[in-house]
Amino acid sequence: ARPRVGYFYAGKKNTLTLTDALMNLKVKDFQSMPVIVSENMTVYDAICHMFLEDVGTLFVADQNNYLQGVLSRKDLLRTSIGTQDLNKIPVHIIMTRMPNIAYCTKSDFLIEAAKKLIDREIDSMPVVNETVGGVEIIGRLTKTNVTKAFISLAQIHEL
Amino acid sequence: ARPRVGYFYAGKKNTLTLTDALMNLKVKDFQSMPVIVSENMTVYDAICHMFLEDVGTLFVADQNNYLQGVLSRKDLLRTSIGTQDLNKIPVHIIMTRMPNIAYCTKSDFLIEAAKKLIDREIDSMPVVNETVGGVEIIGRLTKTNVTKAFISLAQIHEL
Repeated sequence: ARPRVGYFYAGKKNTLTLTDALMNLKVKDFQSMPVIVSENMTVYDAICHMFLEDVGTLFVADQNNYLQGVLSRKDLLRTSIGTQDLNKIPVHIIMTRMPNIAYCTKSDFLIEAAKKLIDREIDSMPVVNETVGGVEIIGRLTKTNVTKAFISLAQIHEL
Repeated sequence: ARPRVGYFYAGKKNTLTLTDALMNLKVKDFQSMPVIVSENMTVYDAICHMFLEDVGTLFVADQNNYLQGVLSRKDLLRTSIGTQDLNKIPVHIIMTRMPNIAYCTKSDFLIEAAKKLIDREIDSMPVVNETVGGVEIIGRLTKTNVTKAFISLAQIHEL
């Protein structure tokens, strides 16, 4: 069969095409609020905090809000089946530290941030502002945010 | 400013538009293999199994592979900080049961399944085959799968 090649009427409502919409999405359009704890919080308290805040990842920061570590639900589950007393282990013992933390900025393209989540096999990463003093945490980008972005593309289509 | 309305050259490689691609994606194009345990497995063993298989959700099935329950990393973490011996609690005590389990079929549109994950606030659900005998588990659909689908749309764009 002959391939359909040619000109298609784009229409008034489609001046922003779905392709444009997809490639122009930024992290800032979909990011969530970060949930931050201090490095001296116990693992037990961190687990309770994760349930209270209903998130899958906690970020660890110093008093200047500079990124020190990341705690995933998986990290906490691994520790919870160990033999140590969860009330005696501070989170800085088990957290992922720099330079092993993947992060993004609010002006990054969402598609690039999504690739980073998949490549690094993580559910969430901090959205940061790199300053001379340190890496400041300003947001949280998760696979939930990317899933919502995916759904939003279909809603553009329905216009 | 006058809106950009008119005809745009679609090009040889774009006969399948991004909109068509998005709206036609099916669960079967992105689903993963399910990881299934029996209802008598202990919570401790289920946690170990989750780490070994590197998944965030386990499905519980009977000997006919019919769906009985779902265990998330969150369910296991909640139980692990309790006072009970994890080696003495079988997973059927803590699992989510029918009719509270969200599921989808392999021929469902991915966009509808993604909406279900968001609406139900879950990371993963079983892909099933509804038979007269019961609900057979044939796959697993996660926010990771949806994130990969989102990335795949950008790759269509790059063609």
